[in-house]
Order: sequence, then C-alpha cells, then structure tokens
Amino acid sequence: MLSAAQIKHLTSLQLKKYRQKYAEFVIEGGKILAEALQEGVEVKAVIATPAQLDKCRLLAGNIPVLEADEKQMKNISSMSEPPGILAWCSMRKASEMQQPDGWQLALDGIRDPGNLGTIIRTADWFGVRNILLSEDCADIYNPKTLQSSMGSMFRCSIIQGTLTDLLRKANKPVFAAAADGDSMDQLRTASGVLVIGSESHGISEEVKRVCDHSVAIPGDGRTESLNAAVAAGILLYGMVN
Amino acid sequence: MLSAAQIKHLTSLQLKKYRQKYAEFVIEGGKILAEALQEGVEVKAVIATPAQLDKCRLLAGNIPVLEADEKQMKNISSMSEPPGILAWCSMRKASEMQQPDGWQLALDGIRDPGNLGTIIRTADWFGVRNILLSEDCADIYNPKTLQSSMGSMFRCSIIQGTLTDLLRKANKPVFAAAADGDSMDQLRTASGVLVIGSESHGISEEVKRVCDHSVAIPGDGRTESLNAAVAAGILLYGMVN
Repeated sequence: MLSAAQIKHLTSLQLKKYRQKYAEFVIEGGKILAEALQEGVEVKAVIATPAQLDKCRLLAGNIPVLEADEKQMKNISSMSEPPGILAWCSMRKASEMQQPDGWQLALDGIRDPGNLGTIIRTADWFGVRNILLSEDCADIYNPKTLQSSMGSMFRCSIIQGTLTDLLRKANKPVFAAAADGDSMDQLRTASGVLVIGSESHGISEEVKRVCDHSVAIPGDGRTESLNAAVAAGILLYGMVN
Repeated sequence: MLSAAQIKHLTSLQLKKYRQKYAEFVIEGGKILAEALQEGVEVKAVIATPAQLDKCRLLAGNIPVLEADEKQMKNISSMSEPPGILAWCSMRKASEMQQPDGWQLALDGIRDPGNLGTIIRTADWFGVRNILLSEDCADIYNPKTLQSSMGSMFRCSIIQGTLTDLLRKANKPVFAAAADGDSMDQLRTASGVLVIGSESHGISEEVKRVCDHSVAIPGDGRTESLNAAVAAGILLYGMVN
C-alpha cells in the first residue's frame, strides 16, 4: 500500500508548481502508460488498484508496481473516474530539435489544456514533431493536456518559452495563421514555422512582428472563426500534402 | 423580476427531456443572441441581469426583456459564470434541405456536445449546412453544443434520426471516414454525404453497410487516431478545395 507521504507527493503533482519543482508528472490509464514506456519516458513507479495489478506488472517490466486501494487512487487521481492505473514519471529535458529541416509548429496563447493536447496529437499525426509554445500556453504536463494528446506528447520535442525568442532562434520563415492571411496553398511548397494563435485573441502583437508570411483557411465567410485545433489540423494537412 | 414559475420552467430547459417536451431551449451571451436573431430564431423572451438590461433592450427590439437578479440568473443558467444574458427560444422544425446538390455531412455517435458543436461550426465555415445526426449523437440543443457551435447551428439544417434511413433517403454516394480508407483526393471531384464516426467507436456496422466509398486522412502512421472534430475539418477542407 502507498504511504501517506507517497500519497501527499503524488497528489501534489496535480498542481503545476509541484510538477515544476520536482520535474515530475503523472499519467493515467494503461494505454498512455504503454505509449510512454515505448517512447522511453522515465517511469519511477506504477500505481495500481488491486484489479489492475496483474496487468500493470506485465506492462511495467522492471519498474516497481505499488498497490493503492480505491480510496487512495481517488486521492491521487485527477480524474472523476480513475482508470486504476497511474504512473509517476520524470520530465525529460527539452530535447534537441529532431528534424531541423522540416516544418515546426508554434502555438501562441493556447490556454485550454484539452485544445493544446489535441493540437499536439494532430501535429504528431502529420509528422510535425518540433513544437514551440508561448509562456501562456497551458502546461503540457497538465493531466488534461496529457490525456487529450494521447501518447503524442512523448514523441514530440516541445519547448515552452518566450515565443519571439524561440522563433528568432529557429531562423526560418515564419507563417502566421490569420483570418485575413494569404492563400494557404503557399504552405505546400514552403517550409518554416507555422504559428497558431488562440481563438479568442489570435496571435499576439509581438509575435506578429516576427512573422514573415500569413496564411488563411478559405471559407464562405458566414462563420467568424474556427476552433484552434481544427484550424491547426487543416493547415498541417495543407503543409504536408 | 422573474416569477417562481418562470424560473422553474427555464431551469427545466437544462434537461433534454424538457427541451423536447416544450420544443424550447435557451442560449446564453450577447453574441450568440445576436446571431440567433439574425438567423431568424424565434426568441420568446430575453432575460438579463440589471447590468445587461440596456444592452439587451437594444438587441431585442420588440421581444420582451425580463429582469433577473444575479441569484435567479445563477439558477436558470447552465454556466458556472453566467454572462447575464439568456434567451428563451423556440426550436424550429427540421427544415427542408437547403442545398440538395451540395455535400452533406452525417455524424454517427458523436456523443460529446462540445465536439458536436465544433463540427457543426466547421461545416458551416465550409458552407456545408445540411447535417444528418444519428440518434446517439449529443443533443444539438444541449447548452454545450450551442456554445461551441457559436451561431453556426442556426444557419444549418440539422436532422437527427435513424442514420441508415436518413442516408438511404439522401440518395447520394455515401463516403465513410475510415482509418483504412482510400485517398481523400476523391472528395475533390465528387459530391455526396460524408459520414464521420466517433473517435472511440468509429462508424457503426449498420451505417458502414450503406456506405459506398471510404476516405482516410494521410498521416505518418505513428499516431492512432485524430480527434473527430479535427478529422471532420480536414475532410471538409478536402471536399471544398
């Protein structure tokens, strides 16, 4: 059974400040655990309810598996219906860019963790795995981001920081997604960084200043905007096809 | 001020069974109210907190504007932070198809109201406004569907029913979105009905049987699936561009 200190520590990881302090995070569910292990995430321990113990021991290999009763699991889980499998993981250092010649994706002010995770998952689908995030994007280790990114987060190189600096350092043409942008057909033959802003605020003024081109998704003009994840999906498709 | 009976009635409209019983629903916020009025939705009354009264009277024209205090608004609102503007609306009868020759979109088992609203909004963006829904899709008058569809719902002709019957009646080529489908390039030159299934269950077996073609979104194969709204966005883009 988990000790009171372990419960306290794992519960604290529901908050960003403790995730950052310890450079640790938790994931929940067998599927995402399998993906994390496959992608080489350092898992310190797996915590399982009695019903999930055998399955977890099989998955975990040499990693310690700790038992938690339903009540303890309820405490350390961030989900209303805990799947009974939780893994205590170490963050990786922001790795070096993997594909310096391909497209990169930059996100400016995507505050909704579910939307952020969905965009990461979509970028991964299209093989765009270098992702830059502004400081005010949601935390990638937020349980909701992790959940909606499925395993994609573990396959991507994600750097969060001052977006203008990150874009200057990338030293590539920067394309801003904007309602009044030019044809998105230009994405087909180009390469660089695509910047997507939030639905409510768009791309910030500072970031706009470091953008070289703009691209819009054609529509019939009666709808004001698209959801940020949907827009990202369409532009990513336009980039790689 | 609102009467107790009015509060009871408006609160009941948070539940699908009462929305269906009375053929009424509520929307919240000034922006969506403006869109509803513009698209000819029948608004029975607008309810506003004192701070929003003037704005609502301006918007509402001849429609009665009723005052509610903060506490009453909290009761009848489905939102944790009510915007202070709520409109009591009548459902329209499922209207006749508006564009019999264009693409139609069919959704099978999209249970998440937020995702359903996002898909409707995306279809509207691309001018695809004939939408068929299976019985087990979320309710289009669910507050979360309304919120995420923005005003798009009011511009679309949406019919919910037995999807196989609706598809047979449409009497057009039916294209199923499927991970193992053929090239989505075929959408560019074709027309018909595009069917999108849920992320977790895909398209149901009965519906698959009435599909003539299948289409897939190309990816690099390391990600299992896309979010249903993102997939819908990419396929809709592929259809009209």
